[in-house]
Amino acid sequence: MQIIEVHTKSRPSTVYCGEGAYARAEEFLRDKDTFIVTDTNVYRLYGEKLRADFPSARICVVKAGERHKNKATLFQILDEMLQAQLHRNSVVAAVGGGVVGDMAGFAASVYMRGTRLVQIPTTLLSQVDSSVGGKTAIDYGGVKNVLGAFYQPEYVFCDPVFLQTLPPREIKCGWGEIIKTGVLDAKIGDRILENASRLYDLQFMKEIVADCIRFKANVVEQDETEKSGVRKCLNLGHTTGHALELKYGRRSHGEYVLIGMWLESVIAEREGVCTAEYAARVRELIALAQKRIPAFADARSVVKYALLDKKNSEKGIVDMILPKARGEYAEYRLSAEKYAQYLTLLQERQA
Amino acid sequence: MQIIEVHTKSRPSTVYCGEGAYARAEEFLRDKDTFIVTDTNVYRLYGEKLRADFPSARICVVKAGERHKNKATLFQILDEMLQAQLHRNSVVAAVGGGVVGDMAGFAASVYMRGTRLVQIPTTLLSQVDSSVGGKTAIDYGGVKNVLGAFYQPEYVFCDPVFLQTLPPREIKCGWGEIIKTGVLDAKIGDRILENASRLYDLQFMKEIVADCIRFKANVVEQDETEKSGVRKCLNLGHTTGHALELKYGRRSHGEYVLIGMWLESVIAEREGVCTAEYAARVRELIALAQKRIPAFADARSVVKYALLDKKNSEKGIVDMILPKARGEYAEYRLSAEKYAQYLTLLQERQA
Repeated sequence: MQIIEVHTKSRPSTVYCGEGAYARAEEFLRDKDTFIVTDTNVYRLYGEKLRADFPSARICVVKAGERHKNKATLFQILDEMLQAQLHRNSVVAAVGGGVVGDMAGFAASVYMRGTRLVQIPTTLLSQVDSSVGGKTAIDYGGVKNVLGAFYQPEYVFCDPVFLQTLPPREIKCGWGEIIKTGVLDAKIGDRILENASRLYDLQFMKEIVADCIRFKANVVEQDETEKSGVRKCLNLGHTTGHALELKYGRRSHGEYVLIGMWLESVIAEREGVCTAEYAARVRELIALAQKRIPAFADARSVVKYALLDKKNSEKGIVDMILPKARGEYAEYRLSAEKYAQYLTLLQERQA
Repeated sequence: MQIIEVHTKSRPSTVYCGEGAYARAEEFLRDKDTFIVTDTNVYRLYGEKLRADFPSARICVVKAGERHKNKATLFQILDEMLQAQLHRNSVVAAVGGGVVGDMAGFAASVYMRGTRLVQIPTTLLSQVDSSVGGKTAIDYGGVKNVLGAFYQPEYVFCDPVFLQTLPPREIKCGWGEIIKTGVLDAKIGDRILENASRLYDLQFMKEIVADCIRFKANVVEQDETEKSGVRKCLNLGHTTGHALELKYGRRSHGEYVLIGMWLESVIAEREGVCTAEYAARVRELIALAQKRIPAFADARSVVKYALLDKKNSEKGIVDMILPKARGEYAEYRLSAEKYAQYLTLLQERQA
């Protein structure tokens, strides 16, 4: 098991990563007033185990799925927290994927202006990405993650035991963010390419999870609240990915990120931000998890979702992060019109 | 005009206090994408002025009154922020009393995980207390301020120009928090007693506002998020005050704080936390603004609201801050039963 410290300004966070992490969670929560938030999928698989391991905890079960990451579910959690008469010293434990972690984290941040929070991520995506760094949110008014808070968990317990029960769709979703990290960090990128045949191998997943967390911790320590710009790099592929997700919403978040990175690698190449060779390497990484870029009817129209993105700083302009060179990225801005032209590339199935 | 810096860990905050503060706000907001939040009362008095002074700002007008400090109003503000397509660099300007400041501040803290925020408090209460220190919140599920965030405004512009149009009820409300500060800080207490005849004198209000802000800034710098306990002192009178406010809700917040402090001074005396002489001084200060403590039918039953208070750390126990000696306070805990007995003292009108 590895222990990774995240030294953020607001509150330090400790990540336990590897076999035994769940046992650490049990130990930590044993004597606490604990409120578990999980979803119907996780509860079906692990509900009995959770009841047995945390007999005095209250368990709040929300509907599974990205489309329930909304105001109604947030207030379901808050209502149950109030009914349970949680106080500031109570601990909210998010047991689930990114959606559960984002909503439970947001609820913990606003309840009495902040209760204690730990994350027990159960998906590959939430282990490598969303459980670390303190971003919490819900979708609202047709905009992804538009309401939320930066709120660091005291602990993150990433145990590979949960990865064993993940369906392939969820593993692929996680690879979306892992490959994004591989584009941002040259060593991680090399490692993924060297182990191309082991993407669904539990041992390799365990190793790469720790690498990705270490990379993310370093970024978050430099720019916890996305003010200096360093943290913006984590949005690679997300401008297009989020916009597609809002419009189509059938595939997983990670898959949309992969498709978003694919388009953004083309934009980077055509706009002269990166070389054709480097764009090819990015697409080689993407192809490991996403062999084929599907066609999206009317993809051009997703520009309107991209214009609502939080990263934008000027009206009519879409801000995005583009790959530049090994381990380098660029902040880039395109007019809505030009971006819409690029989006038409997604209207045809790619080779 | 005085300039008071609040050096909080999350973000420094600058308070301009005195004549000319509003002109500074105009100057600061001139070139910003500005979103003003105000209420129907303030808009009736100052709407035209705001439209003239901030011609490009959007103005969101919420219903005036403590009972609208709720989820519906919070989401009205957020919906209008989304419609206005605010980005993270936009500035939310709260122009109003404590209710407007608390809700606009909370909305600013969660919108895109934080937009810029300035406070332009227009009531005595919000100038001396709520606009400084970053506490934001709404009431929910029958609990005061139970959902919120610690979120520092970049600037607070406290201009006495607004105090001229305040009705006496609002001035008295402000005195509730000023007198609380006078109990916590011996010098401010002395100053209030020396100027007992000048409570409704604009010149004296101006002076005491700056003193109170300086006191609060110092407390908030030591304990921004109410973790170490120092900031808890600001809750003097609020355990009982909030509980009465939740049950009866007709008087102003400040008046309930005065009544709460009165009861808590009796508790402090009878529990041996302070001397009879010191309790008499506290009641002398209270009597300057609240000559007579009214009778509350069934006051004993407000114990159930006090048991939901955020400050409590154990079930069945009510945590409160009691006056101890000149400039000293004590954290004190009473069983619900014992506290209910004390509450019966409020069932009869006091001499």
